Amino acid sequence: MLNKNVFTFIGCDCEYEDAKIVLFGAPFDSTTSYRPGTRFASAVMRNESYGLETYSPYQDKDMEDYGYYFDSGDLELSMGSSELALQDITNRTAEILADGKLPFMIGGEHLVTLGSFRAVYEKYPDVHIIHFDAHTDLREEYLGVKLSHACVIKRCYDLVGDGRIHQFGIRSGMREEFAFAAKHTDMHKFSFEGLEAVADSLAGENVYFTIDLDVLDPSYFPGTGTPEFGGVSFPELLKAMHTVIDRCNIVGMDVNELSPHLDPTGASTAAACKVVREALLELSKGDC
Amino acid sequence: MLNKNVFTFIGCDCEYEDAKIVLFGAPFDSTTSYRPGTRFASAVMRNESYGLETYSPYQDKDMEDYGYYFDSGDLELSMGSSELALQDITNRTAEILADGKLPFMIGGEHLVTLGSFRAVYEKYPDVHIIHFDAHTDLREEYLGVKLSHACVIKRCYDLVGDGRIHQFGIRSGMREEFAFAAKHTDMHKFSFEGLEAVADSLAGENVYFTIDLDVLDPSYFPGTGTPEFGGVSFPELLKAMHTVIDRCNIVGMDVNELSPHLDPTGASTAAACKVVREALLELSKGDC
Amino acid sequence: MLNKNVFTFIGCDCEYEDAKIVLFGAPFDSTTSYRPGTRFASAVMRNESYGLETYSPYQDKDMEDYGYYFDSGDLELSMGSSELALQDITNRTAEILADGKLPFMIGGEHLVTLGSFRAVYEKYPDVHIIHFDAHTDLREEYLGVKLSHACVIKRCYDLVGDGRIHQFGIRSGMREEFAFAAKHTDMHKFSFEGLEAVADSLAGENVYFTIDLDVLDPSYFPGTGTPEFGGVSFPELLKAMHTVIDRCNIVGMDVNELSPHLDPTGASTAAACKVVREALLELSKGDC
Amino acid sequence: MLNKNVFTFIGCDCEYEDAKIVLFGAPFDSTTSYRPGTRFASAVMRNESYGLETYSPYQDKDMEDYGYYFDSGDLELSMGSSELALQDITNRTAEILADGKLPFMIGGEHLVTLGSFRAVYEKYPDVHIIHFDAHTDLREEYLGVKLSHACVIKRCYDLVGDGRIHQFGIRSGMREEFAFAAKHTDMHKFSFEGLEAVADSLAGENVYFTIDLDVLDPSYFPGTGTPEFGGVSFPELLKAMHTVIDRCNIVGMDVNELSPHLDPTGASTAAACKVVREALLELSKGDC
Amino acid sequence: MLNKNVFTFIGCDCEYEDAKIVLFGAPFDSTTSYRPGTRFASAVMRNESYGLETYSPYQDKDMEDYGYYFDSGDLELSMGSSELALQDITNRTAEILADGKLPFMIGGEHLVTLGSFRAVYEKYPDVHIIHFDAHTDLREEYLGVKLSHACVIKRCYDLVGDGRIHQFGIRSGMREEFAFAAKHTDMHKFSFEGLEAVADSLAGENVYFTIDLDVLDPSYFPGTGTPEFGGVSFPELLKAMHTVIDRCNIVGMDVNELSPHLDPTGASTAAACKVVREALLELSKGDC
Amino acid sequence: MLNKNVFTFIGCDCEYEDAKIVLFGAPFDSTTSYRPGTRFASAVMRNESYGLETYSPYQDKDMEDYGYYFDSGDLELSMGSSELALQDITNRTAEILADGKLPFMIGGEHLVTLGSFRAVYEKYPDVHIIHFDAHTDLREEYLGVKLSHACVIKRCYDLVGDGRIHQFGIRSGMREEFAFAAKHTDMHKFSFEGLEAVADSLAGENVYFTIDLDVLDPSYFPGTGTPEFGGVSFPELLKAMHTVIDRCNIVGMDVNELSPHLDPTGASTAAACKVVREALLELSKGDC
Repeated sequence: MLNKNVFTFIGCDCEYEDAKIVLFGAPFDSTTSYRPGTRFASAVMRNESYGLETYSPYQDKDMEDYGYYFDSGDLELSMGSSELALQDITNRTAEILADGKLPFMIGGEHLVTLGSFRAVYEKYPDVHIIHFDAHTDLREEYLGVKLSHACVIKRCYDLVGDGRIHQFGIRSGMREEFAFAAKHTDMHKFSFEGLEAVADSLAGENVYFTIDLDVLDPSYFPGTGTPEFGGVSFPELLKAMHTVIDRCNIVGMDVNELSPHLDPTGASTAAACKVVREALLELSKGDC
Repeated sequence: MLNKNVFTFIGCDCEYEDAKIVLFGAPFDSTTSYRPGTRFASAVMRNESYGLETYSPYQDKDMEDYGYYFDSGDLELSMGSSELALQDITNRTAEILADGKLPFMIGGEHLVTLGSFRAVYEKYPDVHIIHFDAHTDLREEYLGVKLSHACVIKRCYDLVGDGRIHQFGIRSGMREEFAFAAKHTDMHKFSFEGLEAVADSLAGENVYFTIDLDVLDPSYFPGTGTPEFGGVSFPELLKAMHTVIDRCNIVGMDVNELSPHLDPTGASTAAACKVVREALLELSKGDC
Repeated sequence: MLNKNVFTFIGCDCEYEDAKIVLFGAPFDSTTSYRPGTRFASAVMRNESYGLETYSPYQDKDMEDYGYYFDSGDLELSMGSSELALQDITNRTAEILADGKLPFMIGGEHLVTLGSFRAVYEKYPDVHIIHFDAHTDLREEYLGVKLSHACVIKRCYDLVGDGRIHQFGIRSGMREEFAFAAKHTDMHKFSFEGLEAVADSLAGENVYFTIDLDVLDPSYFPGTGTPEFGGVSFPELLKAMHTVIDRCNIVGMDVNELSPHLDPTGASTAAACKVVREALLELSKGDC
Repeated sequence: MLNKNVFTFIGCDCEYEDAKIVLFGAPFDSTTSYRPGTRFASAVMRNESYGLETYSPYQDKDMEDYGYYFDSGDLELSMGSSELALQDITNRTAEILADGKLPFMIGGEHLVTLGSFRAVYEKYPDVHIIHFDAHTDLREEYLGVKLSHACVIKRCYDLVGDGRIHQFGIRSGMREEFAFAAKHTDMHKFSFEGLEAVADSLAGENVYFTIDLDVLDPSYFPGTGTPEFGGVSFPELLKAMHTVIDRCNIVGMDVNELSPHLDPTGASTAAACKVVREALLELSKGDC
Repeated sequence: MLNKNVFTFIGCDCEYEDAKIVLFGAPFDSTTSYRPGTRFASAVMRNESYGLETYSPYQDKDMEDYGYYFDSGDLELSMGSSELALQDITNRTAEILADGKLPFMIGGEHLVTLGSFRAVYEKYPDVHIIHFDAHTDLREEYLGVKLSHACVIKRCYDLVGDGRIHQFGIRSGMREEFAFAAKHTDMHKFSFEGLEAVADSLAGENVYFTIDLDVLDPSYFPGTGTPEFGGVSFPELLKAMHTVIDRCNIVGMDVNELSPHLDPTGASTAAACKVVREALLELSKGDC
Repeated sequence: MLNKNVFTFIGCDCEYEDAKIVLFGAPFDSTTSYRPGTRFASAVMRNESYGLETYSPYQDKDMEDYGYYFDSGDLELSMGSSELALQDITNRTAEILADGKLPFMIGGEHLVTLGSFRAVYEKYPDVHIIHFDAHTDLREEYLGVKLSHACVIKRCYDLVGDGRIHQFGIRSGMREEFAFAAKHTDMHKFSFEGLEAVADSLAGENVYFTIDLDVLDPSYFPGTGTPEFGGVSFPELLKAMHTVIDRCNIVGMDVNELSPHLDPTGASTAAACKVVREALLELSKGDC
């Protein structure tokens, strides 16, 4: 008898019960102010992930050895109502957490992080955020809208307050945002300088890890709504991810802001897929 | 002394006081459920309109003879808050109407029509709507959202009620939408059949004229979020526009749903620009 | 508990046991001589099919009323070995036929038809072929290769012989191919002229129906490896499909030669999806 | 011993001595005011012409039967100096004419016609021009430049004067250009209406035949700098070409204004190639 | 009362009287020998500049603090007549200089530099040129044309003579051009090596600064007519710009050779915009 | 008398008798499992090579000084039959070798290397392979196919056995492939580390040099079927090529896996062209 067409990110094909890490897509870009398209990221990444192998020569690990990755597909989110969309994301994240598994979200615009983080924060009120990005995302509002991709880290700050948000790679924002960061967040401009120390100081602590892929320089990652030159390299990003995941206790993670159709070469999508594969393997710390 | 860089749709460069018709762009596509991008239409159309001439050999009229077209530029609309965006559109339309001029909006997704129509309906409560489209746009809601491009004609219906909405070219929708139309709107499926009679019956009456450009067959107009084959031809559209504008008293108009980057040939944008030029000249009924 | 990510063509989500029609993709373009890319058609069509509705205003039928369409996904075919790929296609088709269901294949290049037809011919040795195409596909070989997209109808002819192949829309080929057709197939050049009579003569007979979408004029369907102007229109194709499916007993069907990335507007994919939806509904002849 | 890489338009591979028709490319677009790119047409057309066959089922003729087509490649033209470029074109054309062969030029922007026509006019001072185009091309100057694509027919008029230029399909221009045409050229707006009569009246006369491919509607031919809707269909163009070539004595011909990269589907290039193949076969009037 | 649609580069919206720096676009690419398209750069850059912020974290300066940047829009240049186009550029530059303001031109192909430099040289006959580029641009002529983008620095040399032109990043040209440079210009191949010393030696002197953006490696900047690998990185370019502007007295500046449509990701345009923003802020040396 | 249109890679226009190095294209991608398109590489590279100069400032050499490069054009290979295609490649290579010239092949997918290497191995049974690539290419089979691009180095290994294959830059493959390499090939992961020593150890020995261009990081070279981040830079590749060619006796060479249409900026093609020019000049060791 023929089977239904099950379609997953490469190597994420275990049964839900056996899963330790659960992927889901949050195809939402309704508040994107500049060039939309991140809604297509998760679906395109599933397709293109098969250009990768399950084996990583960097870590000498194979996804097939672990076999506990599950892809629960994309949420069907309401374009035009950020609050409805965020609620759906929070529910999905909460369900995964309730089952004792790790939620791994693929955006979507960066606003989706708020949905996932709300559930994580509910369960882990002491959680820190490590935030890789080109942009501060610390606006109080954008054209009158508080639930905007440009405000997402400020919204998270509203929950956790001072000293819990650690930002790296930041190189764009309003002067006011940088001033706010100087007072209220742990911002590291331009690069990953200082990450080792931060990771050490958070060793073993609960961390929500959000990667806005535009932290990468556009020479590596042009496929995003607002490319900002002066960013980090791909090898630097892999190394920084290792630093964070290896030392901290990741309780939620997301990778966001790929806009696949903006880069017709497919290279940006390939970069995003490799980031996800490497992250999944880094998160697989114990024995196979 | 050097001048500021004023940038208008071709031929729309009079002073505001002298204007009879006022263009404005509504760059909003926040509720688009499928492929976004209509936010770029008005800016790209201004650029590409210079591939046209101001003279129309079809009508043997020249925009320069009238010289009463004004382009007030694009509204800065809030992505992520449809109600804020619609309010801004309503305000702009109301201001133009208050000054005794005709508002001519370039979308944006079709939801923007609701913003403009609210102001027109406020001034002309007896107004009819003539609606060219591939889609019914009669959903009550879409994934829980009532202010969605897929619901815009239903939202207009909520204002005007039975018998005031005349739809042409419709070829896609849910069965329930077609059933609703059979009872509550004057729907003409697939083509402009019946338009002459409708225009005659509305001769001299106040009409809001909304053209979703996807009424065109995708062979003419692929640059739109949801191309739907089986549509009308470009010459058929020009003729139908003439029928409507020549006989009815147009009190508001919009042209929407061009997504320029989806058609890299630029042909879809060229089609949209020609539709706007021909409409502006058709609306210029009296002497020069 | 979260579900696996099942991904189907719109409306094709019943259980296999309940299915009457079974879709599958044959992502193969290894012999394409000019511009490859049809391997991506079935996956892209699944994605884009959600731009359609399940309801057809042309037929006043809704896929949800029938609910017996199943999408079994894509075969994993061997690029570089046509014989292996064809064998896999034949096996899949035979399995569907053995279960008393109708196989509906989405190519891939036209060579895939041979794989499916071999299984159909095995079960129905009296089967006729109705073939819509721009090209004759009657070469004996192409650069020494007999299993080539340019030879596929000749390979089918090798099975069924004279008088069983009915070709429409043909407008490109070598002089020798046209000469062969004049003697051995029932070829109708340029259009669907004569289709009514052919369909009448085959009323109730077993027919394999293969649609090379490049039968459409490139103004409707540029997204194909070898666009050939002078083709039929989209409405003409819908009407011709109705003629064939309404009168004949379709025992196998395929739609092929969409190369989605060649048409970045997505219109060609939208055309292909609408062809498939209309075909599925036409094939649903009895009560719901 | 290995041969040099000779690269020709399909079927144009005889020796020069045996040639009756000589193709050459004029890759020049230096005066294009809007979107450049026609410089690439001839090279891309050579590549893509192999998607065609040498046999035309429309005419039941095969280029291989005649075998007297020669492709002399592209001129190397000076971007930035129209007069130098035109001189090179005139020289090439004159050389072909001097050898008793028919020059067939592939543009390039429409200005290149002036270069070729100067040589033809030198040899045949009684020559008429049949001109297919969307645009009048009758400006006296464009931003101070007289050698502009927008002025090319006016420059030819300066040579031949009243009554010798026959224009078809025209649908764009300044009012002044249409007024000029009404007095000085034989202009047929929008379509090929009147072509039969013109061709009859010029039966056997020397005619230079210039086809600006944007005479085609952009649904057929979006790959051009200034797409103008409301044009003729591809079958209408083929028929009109037959009318002209069959009745008149063509002493020079060109096909121009394809800008291949503007249409990434390749369909516009395919249309241009088919136009050239059909023209070459129509021009092959006698026995093989 | 509604305002006209004024459209400027981000942050360049003061009144002309208040301006210290005046931007203008020179949309000209008529002599481009390879892939045209730089004519679109200034218009596209205005659009995309809004993906930036007015604040630079690199310099900790905000354009809004200075508020003396004016965008006078694009010149309407004659394609097909380089001399007419250059004259218009010279006039615009001279007008800005006469008003005591700094001209900042956005090309266009590199030939436009000659137009601007002529006016600067007229006012400052002792001026030096600092030239960043991948190409020597030192040909005496190109296919018989002296006013060619490939000759622009040679044309400037014809004005200023030996020892006044300082070239950096050069990695492509004919052997003869490199030989010429060895004798007559101060050429630094491949990188910015030696720039510190040159800038020191020109401290306080009048310098015309011309940046051909293809000095960047194509990994950073593929959107240009002739991408040449082996170039400098984006951070290296920013640093080099700082070195020049900080030490020398810039009396004219241009940024050229972006061809925006060649890079559909938009990253090249984003790079160009950031270069212009950083340059404008670097040029703002005194107090706010 | 006009000449035929001879079309070569820049600078490769000597007579065959005078040639020391013979280029040919192998436009084959029939087994490509992911994104096809390398079949277009050689033709597109010929076109775009004219964006280069014949002079290299890196080596201070000019192709015109040597003048012994010949471009014999593209083979016409059978899509759908790898064995036929490989045989044609082997024959062409053998013919060049028999004439005492160096074969330089431009792929095509990497499988074409097997065709060329078979001829080289026949003549030089002691030959070593130096292999630059992102991928191991050491699979025994791929979906049942042994003649696959994913298996090409394994097929070469089947000929030469242990210790003769030297791989650099490898960063993707199955765990089994890396395990195989650890035992049977001289694999250097991620970079060119160790290349100096290998080149020294092979000084003066016969070497077949195959460069899969995806060894480059996708920031430099996105135009390939399977972009794999973490690769080498363009300057690193040039340096490594110098190391190999300067010290070893190259008896056959190929450059493969450019898929030009995947990178619409043209930068990847420009990279490939520059690699070929630099390689040709490096191979020109003696006096001019």
